[in-house]
Amino acid sequence: MPLAMLRLKNLLGGAWSEGQGEGVTLINPATEAVLGTTSSAGLDLVAGLAFARREGGAALRSLSYAGRGKLLAAMAGRIHEHRDELIELAMTNGGNTRSDAKFDIDGAMGTLAHYAELGAALGEVSMLADGESVQLGRAPRLAGRHVHVPRRGVALLINAFNFPAWGFGEKAASALLAGMPVVCKPAPSSAAIAHRLVEVLADVLPAGAVSIVADLEHELPALLGYGDVLSFTGSSRTAARLRALPNVLDASVRLGVEADSLNSAILGADVEAGSETYELFLGDVVREIRQKAGQKCTAIRRIFVPPALRERVREDLVERLARVVVGEPFADGVQMGPLATAQQRASVLEGACRLAEHADVVLGRDGVRPVGVPEGKGYFVPVTLLEARDPGAALLHRLEVFGPVATLFEAPDDVDALVELVARGEGGLVCSTYTDDRKLAGALVHGLAPHHGRLVLGSQKIAGQAMGPGAVLPQLLHGGPGRAGGGEELGGLRGLSLYSQRTALQGDRALLDGLLKG
Amino acid sequence: MPLAMLRLKNLLGGAWSEGQGEGVTLINPATEAVLGTTSSAGLDLVAGLAFARREGGAALRSLSYAGRGKLLAAMAGRIHEHRDELIELAMTNGGNTRSDAKFDIDGAMGTLAHYAELGAALGEVSMLADGESVQLGRAPRLAGRHVHVPRRGVALLINAFNFPAWGFGEKAASALLAGMPVVCKPAPSSAAIAHRLVEVLADVLPAGAVSIVADLEHELPALLGYGDVLSFTGSSRTAARLRALPNVLDASVRLGVEADSLNSAILGADVEAGSETYELFLGDVVREIRQKAGQKCTAIRRIFVPPALRERVREDLVERLARVVVGEPFADGVQMGPLATAQQRASVLEGACRLAEHADVVLGRDGVRPVGVPEGKGYFVPVTLLEARDPGAALLHRLEVFGPVATLFEAPDDVDALVELVARGEGGLVCSTYTDDRKLAGALVHGLAPHHGRLVLGSQKIAGQAMGPGAVLPQLLHGGPGRAGGGEELGGLRGLSLYSQRTALQGDRALLDGLLKG
Repeated sequence: MPLAMLRLKNLLGGAWSEGQGEGVTLINPATEAVLGTTSSAGLDLVAGLAFARREGGAALRSLSYAGRGKLLAAMAGRIHEHRDELIELAMTNGGNTRSDAKFDIDGAMGTLAHYAELGAALGEVSMLADGESVQLGRAPRLAGRHVHVPRRGVALLINAFNFPAWGFGEKAASALLAGMPVVCKPAPSSAAIAHRLVEVLADVLPAGAVSIVADLEHELPALLGYGDVLSFTGSSRTAARLRALPNVLDASVRLGVEADSLNSAILGADVEAGSETYELFLGDVVREIRQKAGQKCTAIRRIFVPPALRERVREDLVERLARVVVGEPFADGVQMGPLATAQQRASVLEGACRLAEHADVVLGRDGVRPVGVPEGKGYFVPVTLLEARDPGAALLHRLEVFGPVATLFEAPDDVDALVELVARGEGGLVCSTYTDDRKLAGALVHGLAPHHGRLVLGSQKIAGQAMGPGAVLPQLLHGGPGRAGGGEELGGLRGLSLYSQRTALQGDRALLDGLLKG
Repeated sequence: MPLAMLRLKNLLGGAWSEGQGEGVTLINPATEAVLGTTSSAGLDLVAGLAFARREGGAALRSLSYAGRGKLLAAMAGRIHEHRDELIELAMTNGGNTRSDAKFDIDGAMGTLAHYAELGAALGEVSMLADGESVQLGRAPRLAGRHVHVPRRGVALLINAFNFPAWGFGEKAASALLAGMPVVCKPAPSSAAIAHRLVEVLADVLPAGAVSIVADLEHELPALLGYGDVLSFTGSSRTAARLRALPNVLDASVRLGVEADSLNSAILGADVEAGSETYELFLGDVVREIRQKAGQKCTAIRRIFVPPALRERVREDLVERLARVVVGEPFADGVQMGPLATAQQRASVLEGACRLAEHADVVLGRDGVRPVGVPEGKGYFVPVTLLEARDPGAALLHRLEVFGPVATLFEAPDDVDALVELVARGEGGLVCSTYTDDRKLAGALVHGLAPHHGRLVLGSQKIAGQAMGPGAVLPQLLHGGPGRAGGGEELGGLRGLSLYSQRTALQGDRALLDGLLKG
């Protein structure tokens, strides 16, 4: 796609401006063509953050929850108007197929629209009630009530490269509805999409409500102070570095993290090959490996199947995955694009090799021949399926290979032993189970829930309308314990907690009731 | 009180045992008499934690929420049976007056009883529903639901010296009801109370559900792993050290913190001297300075009064505080005991001196003459009231002097300026306001809520039944942002969150509903 050379501008302090120096080069990962550059060097970050806190914060807090919901609706509307353009940009800058690009852009739009509806339902109030009043004394007059109010700071949103639109939309929807201004720090590799997104949104928002800064030197986190929030999606290694910042250690800054996860899919021993539930399982696994070339925090990395079905599942997966057409996203019939960067490609190839120390490679040994690109160009990797030789090997449960790579395990017959094996992931975002045995489903929920932020219970009854574990829904929590970072995003109004202070009010019941009427 | 020399035993791995070496000496802080020693040197901490996770965890999870509620009720019952003995021990080992000791022991008992009732109300379920089902697809069959389940680990409860009973009861009630076994690490200075408390409780609990270990070398936090929880009450400096532990940085261990707070009391400009609201204010301030000799995380440290009432408030406070009888807790008429340790005394005296760099000492210059103790003995400090010379001085809003010490400020007339001054505390546990002007109360709530975990709205209407800001109620959240540590305890079922994993379930509605029926 012919595009003029891009020079991304930053929106900070209420104005668009270019950074100094060349900064980082934006690349088309399918062709390695240079698309443009991005930098924020020389910008006054301290003043920009102060502007967001002061101007953006005051403007947002002057609105009710319903008023802020209207802003979100307007944002969703702007994305809809620019949908085709954003999709093309995601195909060019992100290496997304059209379907992958829609997944990202429509995800952002849908999440903003959902939070717009939540805001409308909350109405013209300036505090969000948390539960009902409780009587504190012997007489009903003395009451207690919990409320959420906006934190008085700025929310820095550090997004991952894989969902430049949805990742932003998800965090921004919660933060803005909660009443906090946001500063988006996009991942450099897909920054063109994030910057264009903010460009199309900015004119429906008050000044300072949304900013975007390249921050290639990672200076922003250390500039946050009391009342600010840092919402991070990325690797657990970077998350640990953020947790060790002095302003996080002393609790001035509240940190939310969504990090690594080796999500599992579990096929029940009751399921017959070829049944609806079996097909649901197969379809989910294939989609989660292929979609976005496996560059999804919710992608299935570990597949547990009963001994009797192991051969059959392996054959069916190999058959379907081998058919996936890899290549240039604009080329006809392409189902999977490249990885986002050369570095990601190297990391995935190396990771697959490390997994292969404990697992047999059953698909992906022969490399990849992408269609529609010049020989040797593009950050492509093959769809790779491994099969564990040693199911208990720690690495297989710990190393998140962020590409179209998954490992097949033989599941122990005993549910507790299976749960123990899955739990070696030490905390994950999502786990999906496929069974029509209600007792088994119940046992799996009890065993797996402590280790995950979300469980998707696949069964014949919902086979026709199931969404698969990879889709992050605004109604349900996104996040997980341990390795997944311990954060909680989305989940309807639950997502506002990170950006709100929950406060107990104690006093005259009539006074408290009046405050919550707006 | 004549007591045999105590040698505290540790309950770990299901058995009581003494540590090696002398360990730390337990002192009567009023007389400096030696009461005994405590140590856990030589104990196998790793095995003890593993026992708690395995045996205690399994036993607790085998019960429903109602079943665990019954355990809490039995614990409250055991405290009731041993109430007099525990109160005497708190007077001897803790330097508490009888009234202070009751506050601690009854606080523990009341909190356990409250959570017992919450458990009974939840009934025979093994997962705790969080909100209602939501429809995810076009048809109602595909639904989402959030649940809380017990985390699969052990909760280490690190308690402060000031509330050896209540501090334990508060954390343990939430953890045990949530389904997590607990290990209590008491503060050494008041450990005799915590150990005796666990002794009287242990026989109503399954093995491993509650342990207590001196851990004088602070080895336990680093021994925690994936699935464990660390719940800490203490200084913000120690909290920052805990946050920097590798197992916390990598999110294996979930940390809850309740730390420093310079709680404020604010008198409205509408209040007339001598009115009911004025008396409520005075009574709260005097109590919060005197009670437990000011060794309460919720004690009032900063008092903001309108210019017109400043002289009057100063005179009234000096008059009432000067009458407080300080001395040996068992002596007749004593209203305030010593501080807990020689170190606390040195720290409070030094802190008061530092405050005096920015404030005039209006009460407390003449030292203290405690009654009922030998000349020069005991860790007593005078009731100290200061008046800010420079209300904006950072130190006055930052230095928590953990004794009977408070500073009087002239409040700006402008509400925003007043809020800004209070907010220099950068996060606190509780703030109390005293006004009958509803508009002012509303403005204060909106301004102060983002900076506090709890606001107590004093007014004439509740003057007769108000509880004061210092009482931590099980119904309402305890914790606060920023300097207060960012944690959330209590607040009814909200308190279970730290010890639970919240998980979204996605699937067939009938299946989800069935799981939540027990």
